[in-house]
Amino acid sequence: MLFVLSHVLRGSALLQTLPPYRELDTELTQQLVQEAGKFVGEVIAPLNRSGDEIGARFKDGQVTMAPGFREAYQAFWQAGWPALAAATQDGGQGLPIVLEVMLFEMLNAANHGWAMAPDLLHGAYECIKHHASDALKERYLAKLARGEWLATMCLTEPQAGSDLGLVKTRALPQDDGSFRLTGTKIFISGGEHDLCDNIVHLVLARLPDAAPGSKGLSLFLVPKFMPDGARSAVYCDRIEEKMGLHGSPTCVLRFDAANGSIIGQPGRGLQAMFVMMNSARLHVAMQGIGLLEAAWQKADTYAQERRQMRAPGCKTTDPSGADLIREHPAMRRILDTQRAWIDGGRVIAYRTAVELDVARHHPDAARRDAALRWCSLTTPVLKAAFTQQAFYGSSECLQVFGGHGYVRESGIEQHVRDARVTMIYEGSNEIQAIDLLVRKVLPDGAGAFRHWLDALRSDLDPQQSVDARVLTRLTALQAHADRLAQAAIADDTLGHWLADDFLRAVALSLLDWSFARIAKAPEAATLRWKAPAQALERWIMPELAMRLGIIDAAICATGAASSAADMHT
Amino acid sequence: MLFVLSHVLRGSALLQTLPPYRELDTELTQQLVQEAGKFVGEVIAPLNRSGDEIGARFKDGQVTMAPGFREAYQAFWQAGWPALAAATQDGGQGLPIVLEVMLFEMLNAANHGWAMAPDLLHGAYECIKHHASDALKERYLAKLARGEWLATMCLTEPQAGSDLGLVKTRALPQDDGSFRLTGTKIFISGGEHDLCDNIVHLVLARLPDAAPGSKGLSLFLVPKFMPDGARSAVYCDRIEEKMGLHGSPTCVLRFDAANGSIIGQPGRGLQAMFVMMNSARLHVAMQGIGLLEAAWQKADTYAQERRQMRAPGCKTTDPSGADLIREHPAMRRILDTQRAWIDGGRVIAYRTAVELDVARHHPDAARRDAALRWCSLTTPVLKAAFTQQAFYGSSECLQVFGGHGYVRESGIEQHVRDARVTMIYEGSNEIQAIDLLVRKVLPDGAGAFRHWLDALRSDLDPQQSVDARVLTRLTALQAHADRLAQAAIADDTLGHWLADDFLRAVALSLLDWSFARIAKAPEAATLRWKAPAQALERWIMPELAMRLGIIDAAICATGAASSAADMHT
Repeated sequence: MLFVLSHVLRGSALLQTLPPYRELDTELTQQLVQEAGKFVGEVIAPLNRSGDEIGARFKDGQVTMAPGFREAYQAFWQAGWPALAAATQDGGQGLPIVLEVMLFEMLNAANHGWAMAPDLLHGAYECIKHHASDALKERYLAKLARGEWLATMCLTEPQAGSDLGLVKTRALPQDDGSFRLTGTKIFISGGEHDLCDNIVHLVLARLPDAAPGSKGLSLFLVPKFMPDGARSAVYCDRIEEKMGLHGSPTCVLRFDAANGSIIGQPGRGLQAMFVMMNSARLHVAMQGIGLLEAAWQKADTYAQERRQMRAPGCKTTDPSGADLIREHPAMRRILDTQRAWIDGGRVIAYRTAVELDVARHHPDAARRDAALRWCSLTTPVLKAAFTQQAFYGSSECLQVFGGHGYVRESGIEQHVRDARVTMIYEGSNEIQAIDLLVRKVLPDGAGAFRHWLDALRSDLDPQQSVDARVLTRLTALQAHADRLAQAAIADDTLGHWLADDFLRAVALSLLDWSFARIAKAPEAATLRWKAPAQALERWIMPELAMRLGIIDAAICATGAASSAADMHT
Repeated sequence: MLFVLSHVLRGSALLQTLPPYRELDTELTQQLVQEAGKFVGEVIAPLNRSGDEIGARFKDGQVTMAPGFREAYQAFWQAGWPALAAATQDGGQGLPIVLEVMLFEMLNAANHGWAMAPDLLHGAYECIKHHASDALKERYLAKLARGEWLATMCLTEPQAGSDLGLVKTRALPQDDGSFRLTGTKIFISGGEHDLCDNIVHLVLARLPDAAPGSKGLSLFLVPKFMPDGARSAVYCDRIEEKMGLHGSPTCVLRFDAANGSIIGQPGRGLQAMFVMMNSARLHVAMQGIGLLEAAWQKADTYAQERRQMRAPGCKTTDPSGADLIREHPAMRRILDTQRAWIDGGRVIAYRTAVELDVARHHPDAARRDAALRWCSLTTPVLKAAFTQQAFYGSSECLQVFGGHGYVRESGIEQHVRDARVTMIYEGSNEIQAIDLLVRKVLPDGAGAFRHWLDALRSDLDPQQSVDARVLTRLTALQAHADRLAQAAIADDTLGHWLADDFLRAVALSLLDWSFARIAKAPEAATLRWKAPAQALERWIMPELAMRLGIIDAAICATGAASSAADMHT
């Protein structure tokens, strides 16, 4: 992790261009990441199994978290970890977002179920900081910045999932300026628990005179306990039985004329919530990378212990006559391929987090805009590609264990079950793909996308062979985006059919770029970095031509463009 | 299912070329498949949820199956279903294997956990029929043919999974010709249960003077209850906690000088067991197809009920202003793509089952040989490709449900968890790929593979456009197999690195061929069949060129062949 941040991305140099981080040196960063690793390894990781096996339990409206969860959370917030990237004036530590992102990668690798609880804090903090009234900030901002209280996002309802325009929860204005909220929200992670003393619910609801659809939504704050200590009228009716993530209670919340306050302007609820969602999407990508790393570590360890059969081209000296399974090409291929996804994922994710820091603090407005463009285009790709890889890749890692991987005891099947939900929540991966292509790339004729590609290209040197290869592929990607934007004018379904292929092509191009960045570090010549680089080129990158070919064929089929088959060879 | 058997494969005409089935007409086949569907739907399917939620329970060496499992099994065998394809002289019904395979597809779709118990009967029956002494046959053959007793395959040990050469269980000869078996077997499906009155364990073990490795293995029969009614010394020490398949107990069996009989010749245990394993592999492929069908049906139903957002190019009349999710391209793509895998899978699997019938009964030895070649090359492809698709494809179907898919209530996540093990057992999918390429295609310079391709080609007409496209791709596949066989002479690791790509290329070619077969049926012009055919061409087949490209690149990298990049355009 530190190698990627410091050697590949030269993160300290980048951060030092931002006024608040002029003093932040590599040594402090290292120390912090190591401290985080120690805390996560000693306090959080040991609770992962009981989180899955005992899980969160529901009784009479109360949720009891798995043994040790509350104590770990109390230790976590009291040690200041949630406040890492919150502003010092709000009680935070004022450190860069990239360090917070690295912390959450570790938390998710160690214990996804537990990490769900603090994972929404940063978003709730930003949302309240930027949109709430001074009175609300006074009461809630510091508590959330420090993590003394936890927060939820209450969006989904039984009839309204991807389509928030269908939200029915009502907010009735009261004479004192407050609101009474009535409705049912489902799939609320951490909607009720015993980790801390209060829970702050951020709730999308509709005012009586609101327009239909998503434009009629406003955002409200409903605390579990009111300022006077009274229990508010928000009730947990049940928690879901799920495929995995048993450590995190997924609640059905009933708002029964619950007392709330509005955040921001009426009818601007979705805009206020988007601050939270975009930040949450990067955090979900970190869940993906963290879970895949956890699965990879288990598989790699097992592959260095277990012996089965002779591996071709390998001469064992073991008395069993069998080689370590890591020597078998099929196993080597799985391990190196998943390693490439993790390593490349880190480069892309940490770079995106640094861009968030740049967007917050860079003195130059044009540079801040470029940073926001980076985040806008890269975040849906990270979210979709790395949650998909978390599930499919950890399943590949499970395969290394053979039958032992299917048994609970090995621990790896939990990662596969836990990972599956990351492909769905915070906007399903299909929604991410549509967000990227249909909402962000096509409307301006792939103009912003071209600027984003320029940012990737600016890191590369056409005189170097690895970089030249990546540049050629980026050119092909740009040509396809341009052609797609052209063809989509005549056929507005085209982008929807091809969104997934386009997102995959962008994800693969980002991986490609990330390994060109890695190749510039002196350590890149060691087997540790050469093996995943080779796996990327041999086993992963061939998908790019396939995706571009699918896009070509679909464009040709619309008749809106002449043959594009000659575009990507 | 009947459409594929009768209209696409013209199964009745094929089966009528075999002496025992001259009288078997389409009507009888239809009636039988419909009866099977009724029994499976009414008796077996309703037990699927309790099989997962309550599961098999272990206490004091005893295993209690989930409620209703025993009654359902008693009804199943008494109705004659296990005996479907067993010979009439053994107490069976003497019907074609293809009908048994279709029955098990339904059983697996309805209740994978329950279906595990009878799923090994056919293999145990064949193994005893062809290898056991008359005395053993006298006692066990009819019981297994009728399914009055159930059977297990005891291969795996803690240190011996894919590598059976590491098996340590010992068999000590006794003066009376019997043996005493001592050792521990793990991952024994149905090793202990209360479904029926006796369990027949088929056990790989080593005689005292046996050679090391797999050549030293012999096969033994150890019953749970001896002929005199005494309990034998085989004990279930525990059942595994697993990711899924909770309805089927996965047992640790301890043989404590248990009394057994040898089956076949000493040192020929693996050969005798292979009869059972090849048959079991086709059945595992049917688990894959059945599970994917079950997941698809749930997703398709949900997509016809749930409304979210406006779909592009679709004008809803619903008061919610939202379209059915089946109208959204991303969902349509998932449903049609998985439909293509299921439809094509049935064509390939039923054809393979018919070839097993041909291999059993055809009067012409050359035709029987061709049938065995078909099964030998197609079975590992079916097993690996359709178990992988069961897991990844049912996960795609889960995605159609959004968050509701991750919750147990929807039922679809169970299919994903259940399906995962099929990629591992009966030879992991990596072993299947090596079996295909390294053991069966490369050794004779892809000669048998060419004959197998000829069998596919003989069904196609180069004058028809769909067929011509498939023929071109089959030619590319053959060229790559030839080139790979050539290159592998100089580099014996090459086949191991590329086994997975080669198996995928063969699986895709088989799908391609299967839809060319489907296209010949008059109903192929309807949307029911056009939608998956189009999904195959647009979304699935592009992987073929990618896989062949990976093979090309690896061959080029060995330097053993000149550039193969011009081979597949």
